[in-house]
Amino acid sequence: MSTIINLLKPLLYTDRYSNHEDMMVPPVEGVAGGGTAYGWDDGLHDPGLLGGTIDPTKVPSAELMHVWCMPSTANVGLQDMPRQYEPISLLAARNERESVQIAIRPKVSWSASSVAGIVHIQCSDLCSASGDRLLIDKSITLRRVVPVLGVPDALVPLDLPVSQISLLAGETTAIWLSVNVPSAQPPGLYEGELIITAKADSESLSQILGKAEKQQLYRELKNCLDILEPIDGGKPLAEAVERAKSATTSLRRILVSPSFSDFCIDNGPVDMEEDAISNFSIRLKLNLTVWDFVLPETPSLPAVIGISDTVIEDRFGVEHGSIEWYEALDRHFKWLLQFRISPYFCRWGESMRVLTYTSPWPADHPKSDEYFSDPRLAAYAVPYNPVVPSGDAAKNYLQKEVEILRTKNHWKKAYFYLWDEPLNLEQYNAIRNQASDIHAYAPDARVLTTYYCGPNDAPLASTSFEAFLKVPEFLRPHTQIYCTSEWVIGNQEELAKRIVAEIQPENGEEWWTYVCLGPSDPHPNWHLGMRGTQHRAVMWRVWKEGGTGFLYWGANCYEKATAASAEIRFRRGLPPGDGVLFYPGEVFSLSHQPVASVRLERLLSGLQDIEYLKLYASKFGREEGTAILEKTGMYMGPECYTHDHTPIDAMRGEVFRTCRS
Amino acid sequence: MSTIINLLKPLLYTDRYSNHEDMMVPPVEGVAGGGTAYGWDDGLHDPGLLGGTIDPTKVPSAELMHVWCMPSTANVGLQDMPRQYEPISLLAARNERESVQIAIRPKVSWSASSVAGIVHIQCSDLCSASGDRLLIDKSITLRRVVPVLGVPDALVPLDLPVSQISLLAGETTAIWLSVNVPSAQPPGLYEGELIITAKADSESLSQILGKAEKQQLYRELKNCLDILEPIDGGKPLAEAVERAKSATTSLRRILVSPSFSDFCIDNGPVDMEEDAISNFSIRLKLNLTVWDFVLPETPSLPAVIGISDTVIEDRFGVEHGSIEWYEALDRHFKWLLQFRISPYFCRWGESMRVLTYTSPWPADHPKSDEYFSDPRLAAYAVPYNPVVPSGDAAKNYLQKEVEILRTKNHWKKAYFYLWDEPLNLEQYNAIRNQASDIHAYAPDARVLTTYYCGPNDAPLASTSFEAFLKVPEFLRPHTQIYCTSEWVIGNQEELAKRIVAEIQPENGEEWWTYVCLGPSDPHPNWHLGMRGTQHRAVMWRVWKEGGTGFLYWGANCYEKATAASAEIRFRRGLPPGDGVLFYPGEVFSLSHQPVASVRLERLLSGLQDIEYLKLYASKFGREEGTAILEKTGMYMGPECYTHDHTPIDAMRGEVFRTCRS
Repeated sequence: MSTIINLLKPLLYTDRYSNHEDMMVPPVEGVAGGGTAYGWDDGLHDPGLLGGTIDPTKVPSAELMHVWCMPSTANVGLQDMPRQYEPISLLAARNERESVQIAIRPKVSWSASSVAGIVHIQCSDLCSASGDRLLIDKSITLRRVVPVLGVPDALVPLDLPVSQISLLAGETTAIWLSVNVPSAQPPGLYEGELIITAKADSESLSQILGKAEKQQLYRELKNCLDILEPIDGGKPLAEAVERAKSATTSLRRILVSPSFSDFCIDNGPVDMEEDAISNFSIRLKLNLTVWDFVLPETPSLPAVIGISDTVIEDRFGVEHGSIEWYEALDRHFKWLLQFRISPYFCRWGESMRVLTYTSPWPADHPKSDEYFSDPRLAAYAVPYNPVVPSGDAAKNYLQKEVEILRTKNHWKKAYFYLWDEPLNLEQYNAIRNQASDIHAYAPDARVLTTYYCGPNDAPLASTSFEAFLKVPEFLRPHTQIYCTSEWVIGNQEELAKRIVAEIQPENGEEWWTYVCLGPSDPHPNWHLGMRGTQHRAVMWRVWKEGGTGFLYWGANCYEKATAASAEIRFRRGLPPGDGVLFYPGEVFSLSHQPVASVRLERLLSGLQDIEYLKLYASKFGREEGTAILEKTGMYMGPECYTHDHTPIDAMRGEVFRTCRS
Repeated sequence: MSTIINLLKPLLYTDRYSNHEDMMVPPVEGVAGGGTAYGWDDGLHDPGLLGGTIDPTKVPSAELMHVWCMPSTANVGLQDMPRQYEPISLLAARNERESVQIAIRPKVSWSASSVAGIVHIQCSDLCSASGDRLLIDKSITLRRVVPVLGVPDALVPLDLPVSQISLLAGETTAIWLSVNVPSAQPPGLYEGELIITAKADSESLSQILGKAEKQQLYRELKNCLDILEPIDGGKPLAEAVERAKSATTSLRRILVSPSFSDFCIDNGPVDMEEDAISNFSIRLKLNLTVWDFVLPETPSLPAVIGISDTVIEDRFGVEHGSIEWYEALDRHFKWLLQFRISPYFCRWGESMRVLTYTSPWPADHPKSDEYFSDPRLAAYAVPYNPVVPSGDAAKNYLQKEVEILRTKNHWKKAYFYLWDEPLNLEQYNAIRNQASDIHAYAPDARVLTTYYCGPNDAPLASTSFEAFLKVPEFLRPHTQIYCTSEWVIGNQEELAKRIVAEIQPENGEEWWTYVCLGPSDPHPNWHLGMRGTQHRAVMWRVWKEGGTGFLYWGANCYEKATAASAEIRFRRGLPPGDGVLFYPGEVFSLSHQPVASVRLERLLSGLQDIEYLKLYASKFGREEGTAILEKTGMYMGPECYTHDHTPIDAMRGEVFRTCRS
């Protein structure tokens, strides 16, 4: 019960009746008796319709539903109440994706079925005054926000140009609209509209033939056939005419039957899309300013994200190393690249030994070159052992791989991630040994190590944090990328400076960070149920602290299942959403296309924010590039960042204003 | 955010990371590393299916969904997790309704559409060994539990014998099954089953023709017609044959097209219901013991429940006094009688003056006699003023009404409810004046007054509670039914005895109680979000405290709306659900039948519990009749009652064991 009561708390009358001296406020009906009065109206609600069945083709859709807009950082829940509609006005750079949400909630029910009503959503191209266009089939996507564990999270694609959704009584539905601006898009103001139309059941249901009706039709047509079939040259003409007349009559009767009443027998079938929009539709203006900045194709900050191959193997029933397995990994890799992240596949061994690899093919395979050369990929993991074991010994394999890769231009993106969070001397030594092997073949190879503490059986210092600080000194030269948990820093931002002070960038060392089950609320992370700005702030934090890369352990780490469409269960012991940034499309439809979470979209937005901040810093210096976070009220620290979207637009607007050419 | 975080709290990892000395438990994959390990299994989940598209006609439905049973006092939320299935075994008296819930949650998605899958639910008759039956179309109802403000509440009827529901990925759906045992039903053990079958999309969707397909079919048939029409006696036979052959070919092509592939051209159409059940269906055994006790047709405890006529008028667009208005009220009255309650219609005047009436017709109208004589009605309200004003003066009206009614057998059910919660001398005096008028015409008339305090401008005692206690002395002889708020008693049950001590049953006085916006959690009431046993305990409390009747101010007191299907909004300032026990059917479908809330069903169950307790008390005495509440752990006091269903079954089982003949 506590959950339900908590859920309703904001709605509950807060007076406590423990004090008998208090006067109760009794329910008042029919008079203006304050908040409890009947007929109290906030001006948003009353549909102004009279009783009886509602024909949505004869009523403005705006009388049937509330429509309002919400920023991409809002978590729009089923119980969210309507707000005033304000027109959508977006700013985007070229090669940027910008998103906004449209919330819809029925005022009445107009459907005979168990839904409140059916709605068609249509989006136009966005056009500039000079005739340039952003095409709906190329640059605009509409997705329905679907709750996971009751929290809006999964973004299930809708059809374009017209999508049909069902509204439920008493529930708010959110639509996630994204515009992907191509790199070559001419800057300017683009305008378009989103058209929302309530539909009658008949337009979706009785335009189709039911089974019984179809059966009847089948019988009648079969009957026509039986009449016509005997006509041949051996029969008298009179019989042939008789039979033809009879069949003609039957056919005519069929064609004027209610089954085909939509189609005018004289003028032929009407165009099907003609009536998709009507004078009663709700039309939302969509304004987008595209500016001349082009987000760099290769992300400035590598964000490497783990994809569990084990999960793919189990869920999609593909055998490690099979053709289907390569195809499944390829699908994932290509889909994930759109989020400005650098995927690596991984499988866990004993004691957190990990096998990580961005390409499942060997270095000399053309696909590996294709993957590693992709300008959207900022970093790639090279496996220490062969991913798909073959005749070669592992040792030879590593040498061969490294010797091939280090001759390539993309070698600067390569890293080796060998162990996840070593905890004791044995594990630290395993990293040293592997790293020695690697550096023997390529002294300039980058080894990445994630950690949040020193070895627990050989303390490097008297306190846990001091020991943690000493890890670079302890591991050097066996690690180049020191990747630490944000959880260690907690709320003490000054600790970041102490970590940075231990790193030797002059020797090619870098400091990266990661989040996983920690830090938890109120710190930025990607757990389900956190605020939208909290999700986006993960990257703001990285920018402010000065890390040069980011790692996340898993984007598809659901609990085990052996069917693609099996329900998504989060792993026990982890906060919901941890290790899960997208869902298999099969859970929501027959599509094999993965379904992004709003958290993955906010990760992308955060990475895009970094490009804005970097542009600003390139013009005004690093100091101003972090000061703007505070100036706009966007991000002050891990426990102090905006809950509201406005400062984000303020930051972006400021960069636009000061950096456009 | 706090709402969402609260919602997830039971799911969140509870460790706090504030102490940096703590070791984090890192995510472990692929090894048995405790709770966070991949592949950890609770034995309930794994569907054991291989990847690829799932054909539900070829897989046991049990591999596609979890099905389990829950008692009627459980609030089964969308996020509820599966439990072990335990067979349903119910006990019911004759003339009793007993309910149980069946929860379904998909393990996988098998539909191409946005739902996880379509499910057919079929219920058989319940049969006894001696051949007696409880028929599905008469005695069994299936309803879908629909959330209101996120809390399971509305019970939307499903079709019988086969209903189709859509399951959503990651959501639990609850079905509310009720058995209504007729008074004449022979006692015995009745057995039946509930059959749940996953359906392919094709069984619901491709068996119907889509609009495009239909348009194509229309074109082809039109073409046939164009070929056949010119055949007449004036044309050569060869042309007629040619044309007939061409049409025959077209028709044959149409009939073997995929549109009609379901129908076998040789054997004729197949039976549509044949494949409703398959070997792959889930079959739930349903056992019901009907015992020889017949719940009295007239409820032992009158529970009078207000229905706002104003709300009916506004929402259904019916004018006060019109034919449609009488029809709307009649529909409500008849529907509500099934819940063992005695409805009264009401409208509020100034200062909480109320006009209450059970029949909208005058006393001499046959419908009034029909209403008041209905054995299911335990009490009826007589209006002080004419409900639909006519030529008669109000004064004459009252005299005429009372003189007609007091000659009737049903006069003992009559009461006058004049004022809701008088607060000052003026209001108390208004009641005295009206009551004097009534008693002038009928000295034995019962006047009911609701109150929770004495007049605030003439304190009857030095403390608020003592003043409240003195109201009977103050109002006598102008009130017979002293109806007090349960909120006044709070947690101090002994106060009930002090109230009772002030009542003079020897002079026809009674003590009734009511709940409204108070008392609030944890006390029993009917607010949304309270526990199921908390809803049902409202009546347990009445039984234990010894009141002889109960009043509730409103069952349809939504916020104002002027369309039947307008969204339901609770009135501002009231706890959600207060004053709302059912919903207009139009909100959920085109049905005009009201939709009960689970809270209304629990009110009915509570009233049925009272009949069990009364039977027990009639055999073992009133003291044992309240002791059994404590003995079974069902109800100890307003803050201490069972959260679990088991004690309810224990009480009912004990009454059955000791009182059956």
